[in-house]
Amino acid sequence: MNKVKIGLMGMGTVGTGVYRLIEGHQDDLVKQTGMEIGIGRILVQNREKKRTIDIDQDLLTEDPYTVLQDPDVDVIVEVMGGVDQTREYVLAALEQGKHVVTANKDLMAVHGGELLETAAKHGCDLFYEASVAGGIPILRALVEGFSSDRITKMMGIVNGTSNYMLTKMSQEDESYESALKEAQDLGYAEANPISDVGGLDAARKMSILSTLGFHVGMNLDEVECKGMEDVTLNDIKYAQDLGYVIKLIGIAKQDDERIEVSVEPAMIKDSHPLASVNGVFNAVYVYGEAVGETMFYGPGAGELPTANAIVSDLVTVVKNMKLGVSGRGMVAPYREKKLKTDDEIFAKYFLRLVVDDQSGVLAQITKRLAAYEVSIEQVIQKPHELEHKAELIIVTHQSSKSSIHKVLKEFDGLEHIDTIKSYYRVETNE
Amino acid sequence: MNKVKIGLMGMGTVGTGVYRLIEGHQDDLVKQTGMEIGIGRILVQNREKKRTIDIDQDLLTEDPYTVLQDPDVDVIVEVMGGVDQTREYVLAALEQGKHVVTANKDLMAVHGGELLETAAKHGCDLFYEASVAGGIPILRALVEGFSSDRITKMMGIVNGTSNYMLTKMSQEDESYESALKEAQDLGYAEANPISDVGGLDAARKMSILSTLGFHVGMNLDEVECKGMEDVTLNDIKYAQDLGYVIKLIGIAKQDDERIEVSVEPAMIKDSHPLASVNGVFNAVYVYGEAVGETMFYGPGAGELPTANAIVSDLVTVVKNMKLGVSGRGMVAPYREKKLKTDDEIFAKYFLRLVVDDQSGVLAQITKRLAAYEVSIEQVIQKPHELEHKAELIIVTHQSSKSSIHKVLKEFDGLEHIDTIKSYYRVETNE
Repeated sequence: MNKVKIGLMGMGTVGTGVYRLIEGHQDDLVKQTGMEIGIGRILVQNREKKRTIDIDQDLLTEDPYTVLQDPDVDVIVEVMGGVDQTREYVLAALEQGKHVVTANKDLMAVHGGELLETAAKHGCDLFYEASVAGGIPILRALVEGFSSDRITKMMGIVNGTSNYMLTKMSQEDESYESALKEAQDLGYAEANPISDVGGLDAARKMSILSTLGFHVGMNLDEVECKGMEDVTLNDIKYAQDLGYVIKLIGIAKQDDERIEVSVEPAMIKDSHPLASVNGVFNAVYVYGEAVGETMFYGPGAGELPTANAIVSDLVTVVKNMKLGVSGRGMVAPYREKKLKTDDEIFAKYFLRLVVDDQSGVLAQITKRLAAYEVSIEQVIQKPHELEHKAELIIVTHQSSKSSIHKVLKEFDGLEHIDTIKSYYRVETNE
Repeated sequence: MNKVKIGLMGMGTVGTGVYRLIEGHQDDLVKQTGMEIGIGRILVQNREKKRTIDIDQDLLTEDPYTVLQDPDVDVIVEVMGGVDQTREYVLAALEQGKHVVTANKDLMAVHGGELLETAAKHGCDLFYEASVAGGIPILRALVEGFSSDRITKMMGIVNGTSNYMLTKMSQEDESYESALKEAQDLGYAEANPISDVGGLDAARKMSILSTLGFHVGMNLDEVECKGMEDVTLNDIKYAQDLGYVIKLIGIAKQDDERIEVSVEPAMIKDSHPLASVNGVFNAVYVYGEAVGETMFYGPGAGELPTANAIVSDLVTVVKNMKLGVSGRGMVAPYREKKLKTDDEIFAKYFLRLVVDDQSGVLAQITKRLAAYEVSIEQVIQKPHELEHKAELIIVTHQSSKSSIHKVLKEFDGLEHIDTIKSYYRVETNE
């Protein structure tokens, strides 16, 4: 065998990019793999649709099983998206001994465990580098580059849309609504942006990263998820005054083999490597016991960045086929998963309250905080636009998440506390 | 076979780190490779020396061939340093079918081609991730993550010592001498710092990066090298005023298959991802036609970061042994190497001159620049401390390196030009 045939399932933006790269870089691919890589079949929604690139019409089909059951197709590249139906197709491909490369984070976050097991059982490769942080080869870095290390922390800016919006809000004082509209106009955000701004997209990627980084089978519903819908320009400004920036961050930590994974708008020091990751760019910060601080930065989406990740996976698939070691390189999760309770999750917190501007109020508040063992690093009191009211900004020392939640619950409706404006986790390297 | 024996050649800082990681992370290594990895022999300079860790004395030897010829040793980890003698040892190891992992950039920059060929001939793996940018898995990223892309530019801050010094000079107004002394006191710089500040250390790493990124066999003497010894606080301040920072940067570019590789103190925009890489940290910025901008950031040296890179390579060696594919994964350079001439190397340039403060001087200078087709983007004239003198700062548009050199040569000694204070390449993304 010296020719490998691809079944390309999906011919949207990313599928077009994959087609372009395979056609355009054929010489390099042959040099690197010793094999010709050709497109054998393409699944499309509509064969008659006008396309931006010239494609042999005979390759196109609207029937997935024409691709999946084509005996000449060795590798399926899945870029059609979707979860349930797509899971069926990928399982069908693997069961017929076809290798799979996918960019589908939704699929991998939900069914990754099952699909990887099926792949191993049938001696197939299943790679998904493109599913997290588009063009950044972060999965390889975790699996291979840090294979001998113990990763204790990963922080990811893994959703370009929300990062674009927060960058606009921070740097150009745009409102949430205006930043969202701009992101939609530029095609970064969907008409319904909930998956981006609500954190679900990032949660899927953090679930994949934690599975690989911590060697546990992480489930999507174990990722705590808070969106950025309530982030205000005021919060951003107060954060800046204190030397912080607000980012929608996936945080995955492991202490004493106990794990926490969340996605939330959090404050990080403006000197943190992630703080200068702006616009639609993505970055994953990885802390390993041996290696210390590292960061991987690049485009999180886009036709060619994503296609590059897919075709690089394809090169590995083809090399493995040639060496006869397909499906044998994967390491299944081997650690027992112990999730932290809210009592075991510690961070600093930023609280912003509007309170009555009268003597004794600060004492009352600090007493309540002390009662829950929340100690204070910094307090700033500012005049409020309403008469007889003051704005109170509190940054706590490391406190448990459960304590903070209890405090907030007690503050809600307490005499002299007018409003809890906002609270944020403050992620430092302490 | 279910046990792999390592011959560890060298027991300095990095050797000690490798020992610690292999002993401390044994469980993970077994889980990931299915093999036990043990240290079989250790080459030391002095068996009697007191060590910071407890080692079985029987493992220690002062004779390299006791390690190299031990039939039980499967993999040599070379962390002893040196070039000529070490080349002999590594060749001897490969010729006996032993795989090699090395952290030795000097060796790989000078003899990499020969050693990799020998490895392939004997079916051995030879990996060297630790040789460039310590803990950052950048070689894997180039070889695997971007295998389907065409890399057109790599910029590296790949020498921690010089970056530490430039950071101190930029952020704390320290002089070159004081920053150097501090780097020496902290153990970052050798008593003789020439390899760090002169750019040779960075040149070795750029030679390795260009070989892998551009698929050509790059020789060390093809890397143009200019040190940071002449960088002054004044230059740094002028750069900051213009929105630039000065970094000792390795620049490798490919246009129309023609290549240039250099190391020099250059100016980059303060918004460039590399601009915020401070202290002893390293980073490699990679631009690929498909992927666009990416950056890989982390520790460039140190016991455990470097050891982590070595042991991760070791994991790959062991996996390959188990799969029976040792020495079969490498792709030798397959492109013809065409180096750019100085006429083909284009950049913006920053020139700082002291000139006579009288009418007609600026006209005379701009006329000379025009004669060599160097056009001006920006001119700033400032008063100089000497009477009747002015300081002239010129930022050019993209100009060829040869034109700039001709201009500088003509300026040197020209009437009304008192001194050429400095000149820097200004690297933008144009």
